[in-house]
Amino acid sequence: MIRVGVVGGTGYTGVELLRLLAVHPQAELACITSRAEAGTPVAELFPSLRGFVDLAFSAPEAAPLAECDLVFFATPNGVAMTQAPALLAAGVRVIDLAADFRLRDAGEWARWYGQPHACPDLLAEAVYGLPEVNREAVRTARLVANPGCYPTAVQLGLLPLLEAGVVEASTLVADCKSGVSGAGRKAAVGTLLAECSESMKAYAVPGHRHLPEIRQGLGQAAGGPVGLTFVPHLTPMIRGIHATLYARLTGGADLQELFQGRYRDEPFVDVLPAGSHPETRSVRGVNTCRIAVHRPQDGDTVVVLSVIDNLVKGAAGQAVQNMNIMFGLDETLGLAAPALVP
Amino acid sequence: MIRVGVVGGTGYTGVELLRLLAVHPQAELACITSRAEAGTPVAELFPSLRGFVDLAFSAPEAAPLAECDLVFFATPNGVAMTQAPALLAAGVRVIDLAADFRLRDAGEWARWYGQPHACPDLLAEAVYGLPEVNREAVRTARLVANPGCYPTAVQLGLLPLLEAGVVEASTLVADCKSGVSGAGRKAAVGTLLAECSESMKAYAVPGHRHLPEIRQGLGQAAGGPVGLTFVPHLTPMIRGIHATLYARLTGGADLQELFQGRYRDEPFVDVLPAGSHPETRSVRGVNTCRIAVHRPQDGDTVVVLSVIDNLVKGAAGQAVQNMNIMFGLDETLGLAAPALVP
Amino acid sequence: MIRVGVVGGTGYTGVELLRLLAVHPQAELACITSRAEAGTPVAELFPSLRGFVDLAFSAPEAAPLAECDLVFFATPNGVAMTQAPALLAAGVRVIDLAADFRLRDAGEWARWYGQPHACPDLLAEAVYGLPEVNREAVRTARLVANPGCYPTAVQLGLLPLLEAGVVEASTLVADCKSGVSGAGRKAAVGTLLAECSESMKAYAVPGHRHLPEIRQGLGQAAGGPVGLTFVPHLTPMIRGIHATLYARLTGGADLQELFQGRYRDEPFVDVLPAGSHPETRSVRGVNTCRIAVHRPQDGDTVVVLSVIDNLVKGAAGQAVQNMNIMFGLDETLGLAAPALVP
Amino acid sequence: MIRVGVVGGTGYTGVELLRLLAVHPQAELACITSRAEAGTPVAELFPSLRGFVDLAFSAPEAAPLAECDLVFFATPNGVAMTQAPALLAAGVRVIDLAADFRLRDAGEWARWYGQPHACPDLLAEAVYGLPEVNREAVRTARLVANPGCYPTAVQLGLLPLLEAGVVEASTLVADCKSGVSGAGRKAAVGTLLAECSESMKAYAVPGHRHLPEIRQGLGQAAGGPVGLTFVPHLTPMIRGIHATLYARLTGGADLQELFQGRYRDEPFVDVLPAGSHPETRSVRGVNTCRIAVHRPQDGDTVVVLSVIDNLVKGAAGQAVQNMNIMFGLDETLGLAAPALVP
Repeated sequence: MIRVGVVGGTGYTGVELLRLLAVHPQAELACITSRAEAGTPVAELFPSLRGFVDLAFSAPEAAPLAECDLVFFATPNGVAMTQAPALLAAGVRVIDLAADFRLRDAGEWARWYGQPHACPDLLAEAVYGLPEVNREAVRTARLVANPGCYPTAVQLGLLPLLEAGVVEASTLVADCKSGVSGAGRKAAVGTLLAECSESMKAYAVPGHRHLPEIRQGLGQAAGGPVGLTFVPHLTPMIRGIHATLYARLTGGADLQELFQGRYRDEPFVDVLPAGSHPETRSVRGVNTCRIAVHRPQDGDTVVVLSVIDNLVKGAAGQAVQNMNIMFGLDETLGLAAPALVP
Repeated sequence: MIRVGVVGGTGYTGVELLRLLAVHPQAELACITSRAEAGTPVAELFPSLRGFVDLAFSAPEAAPLAECDLVFFATPNGVAMTQAPALLAAGVRVIDLAADFRLRDAGEWARWYGQPHACPDLLAEAVYGLPEVNREAVRTARLVANPGCYPTAVQLGLLPLLEAGVVEASTLVADCKSGVSGAGRKAAVGTLLAECSESMKAYAVPGHRHLPEIRQGLGQAAGGPVGLTFVPHLTPMIRGIHATLYARLTGGADLQELFQGRYRDEPFVDVLPAGSHPETRSVRGVNTCRIAVHRPQDGDTVVVLSVIDNLVKGAAGQAVQNMNIMFGLDETLGLAAPALVP
Repeated sequence: MIRVGVVGGTGYTGVELLRLLAVHPQAELACITSRAEAGTPVAELFPSLRGFVDLAFSAPEAAPLAECDLVFFATPNGVAMTQAPALLAAGVRVIDLAADFRLRDAGEWARWYGQPHACPDLLAEAVYGLPEVNREAVRTARLVANPGCYPTAVQLGLLPLLEAGVVEASTLVADCKSGVSGAGRKAAVGTLLAECSESMKAYAVPGHRHLPEIRQGLGQAAGGPVGLTFVPHLTPMIRGIHATLYARLTGGADLQELFQGRYRDEPFVDVLPAGSHPETRSVRGVNTCRIAVHRPQDGDTVVVLSVIDNLVKGAAGQAVQNMNIMFGLDETLGLAAPALVP
Repeated sequence: MIRVGVVGGTGYTGVELLRLLAVHPQAELACITSRAEAGTPVAELFPSLRGFVDLAFSAPEAAPLAECDLVFFATPNGVAMTQAPALLAAGVRVIDLAADFRLRDAGEWARWYGQPHACPDLLAEAVYGLPEVNREAVRTARLVANPGCYPTAVQLGLLPLLEAGVVEASTLVADCKSGVSGAGRKAAVGTLLAECSESMKAYAVPGHRHLPEIRQGLGQAAGGPVGLTFVPHLTPMIRGIHATLYARLTGGADLQELFQGRYRDEPFVDVLPAGSHPETRSVRGVNTCRIAVHRPQDGDTVVVLSVIDNLVKGAAGQAVQNMNIMFGLDETLGLAAPALVP
């Protein structure tokens, strides 16, 4: 059994992580911290966990995190970078579900996140936890930067094209639609049901923090800088990301074969038959990314449709997948169940 | 392994049953029938089952139902009663998720369902599959009538009061709110998103088919006929039933203790702490019924709040629970996971 | 033209009031106050009002409220009672959309609202602005207490029965379902889309502030105290209240005729044909209350279904209706348009 | 008063047209036809119209359409083209809300709509009713082809760029999100709430019928053929279209000024301040198109955000706008009210 600690379990990625860990056959939840909720039983805050999680939230300083095999940070950006070094020094492995270790360049991190990075030296060691790209590095990683939700959906959708060099890397477009849980479980007017139900809007068009992360990953696949226009949209649903990706073809390619070949052995990427249109609900609650690739009217634009559950493959599920890899378990352990449909 | 057949797997109770059976460690799906979809791979109709169900739908007459240990009917009302006798004769056990065997009185069945009953003699043998009442009878049953969704939520909420004789049995009120999946997966204007989203309405106030079923169960608990006003409402959500139950107290009772005592050993009924208000999402996708009991302003009206997922405890999950009981398995096998929240 | 001031226009009742006043042919919006948003153009906060409202929010102390003919308070409870006396003294008429003047008994007000009342002497003068009951008094009122949303739906549904004395007044049940906008436009976790979409729950079962208000109104109709169990529910939609009302009949009555007769001349109460089930969307955006009355299985329980838009007939629309009455205008002026369906 | 007939008033564009006409000061509804609902009072099918529409549906052959000044066709594609010629011959002016007269090329129409065109000679005469382009022609038109919903949102968003020649016309992308009412009021599994709520999907990526219509309009603005990738998405809301448009800049331009200049005198196009993100709810129920233009990171991609209510500016509202123009009325008559927010 892996002794697991969770720092910051009161947000949506936190409670989703608890949901998955609660039934994971090889993980034992040792402690979960929340300063604001210290002392409150987890199942009081989240009645859905009654009977599954008996722990109460601990104050961070009181939690035996250093005695864990693995600590997940499900905290706001900027927290893990202050606490991870000590845990790593104590021999604890760390998966950060926030953004602290996703960018290689500390300067760029500081620009997008509005504060200097607290441990820039760890950025080189941190492994970007997209198993479909970095599986081998994850196995031995001490510190895994769990990818963002949009970056997961976009990268999985575009990687086959960029790796194969069949599209123009300078004119990529990622039009992404996210459920509202992506905004987190925090009191805010903008994500009230009465504000964002029955409505649709783009946001952060001038620049979203996931942009440099996506660019970094795509650039690595393309072997050089990419030009990407990324427009996220707030969609009136709880869970789900639908990434609609546009790229200009530079040469001939059997796109369906290209995608199927790229992901043939991937347990959590499902390339749909030609002509398909994946629905986000088809991955509700599960760690799968479903992808369809189209070339409308046989023109020179390829359209990739990539859907994930932002809280699972886009956050907690991918974190558990990384845990499985890090600890030599079957990668799908605790993650193999069909989506909740309808 | 239990060899399982499913008749009629294209509706919501059917696909939900497949979702649960797909990960059940002791059930093996042998065949699934649908006349309309014969030949279509199940996972083509329901992409969420890709990788979990490899079968295609069979024409009913071509399916080896008679070789199964257990056949579930997830069909419209009136189908199981024509096919169950032959299967039972062949030694196959049957769980009907529709209403064919729920009422003891064939005449009443005919009145509410608008057709004569095809095998009234089986009504006496059929066991009403509410495990919290009939667990022992279910163990040995050949034929189980799986309860309706509203009847499950209402009976679990009122049974402790009626069994204890602390309320007036003649003035019960059940105000029930159901998600739209309760209306089934059939083309209909009334359940289009554009019709029933952002709106709320009561329906069938003059009389709903679940009324005699609820009355029968409550009457058994009360030891005599009950007077019940039952008003179902269509609620703009996919899953969930919230039953708000009103009864007049006839004597003193520690209601919290009464409910906790009644359900102490029930794996799927969770009595919340005093003062709670259960949310339907707290049971989304799971087989639990959560209940809270209130006595506002210490008056003589007791208010019980009872929530279930209409497709799980109200249909497919309860059917799997019954299967577990019938085949001597741990009652929670394949059903133990936290709800999907958020 | 009536010179109108609005105090506190940043919440949902405020913006709804602005929507209605913007097209009212006899109202001229003179000023609108908000301490937090002083200086911000109204149409910047609410782009839906671009082209309709040119004003900016004023700081309360800077607004020429005393020069208005009428001031609406769309503020949290407890604000109007501190500011109304001075305005009244200056000859300004006042409509309070909050609860400050709804209860006649200052002691009861203090108990439910958790603070002493600031001007208990005005409680006797204030007219409870339910036009279907108090139209004549509203005409000449200086101070109108605009009814709450639940109280409007419940009272309009039960008044005919109580006034006619055909039901037991001691065992009334009001099971009410409200859209989330009823909780107001304030940052709160509980009303995030990701929390309350796809879910249903009761709340405040032990006691809701609208209970004494409803009791007071019903008691007046019944000619004595009533016994009422009131259970509000949070429903996953933006607007709308569906009140399902249960009462025990004490004698014979043609219920359909009773309701049609009671509301024959009411411009904003629409009694549906026998057998109907009103939908909340049928009143979306409009000031109408639609009602249907049922007597299931000809038993002794009457079920009344009463729907309103909580922000219109339950708040801002009723306030404009009161304004029309107070200033001798056609009662429907500015309020006559069909609901937004779908 | 304009005597107005409506053919096919039982769908969403039909009932929306009735909602608008019911309060239009210069339109008098003379008849409304529906074969399926002949004899049924309109307000029985749509209770929201109780008190506003007293007519019953007529059988098409019984309706005095030829005595109208104007007939709206709110019918499925293919109906208006069979009936319009006779009405035109009788001196009745016609606005078709379906697609029969939108394409100039009868061959292309036949290819996309799967049937030969019934009156190809009328295609040259028909005026494409996008007032922002064809206002003068609409004034005197006998036959107006009311634009599609997606075409309205996309064209209004891209016209300023193409007319000014500042973008590459060959690599346009229109990523569009539509509410479910766009699929119409017909019984269908795919648009049930339980199917499409809480989910997002693209559809018709290989080719949607609005593609040739959009291409035709954009080509006219660009002065030559355009290359357009158009991907529509089904979004879990009732109303609203959000078009996110991408184009490659070919030269310098003050984009904000360009858009504001283009639409300065347009009553129903509202260009938002720089940096804005329009929400679809800001146009709920109204005839306005709100637009924002962005140039992320000062790169060479322009992103235009264009929102409309698909049933108003995308259908019935634009039809009324066209009626106003055709009959010499103030273009905004009956259409000037703020959106329903929240």
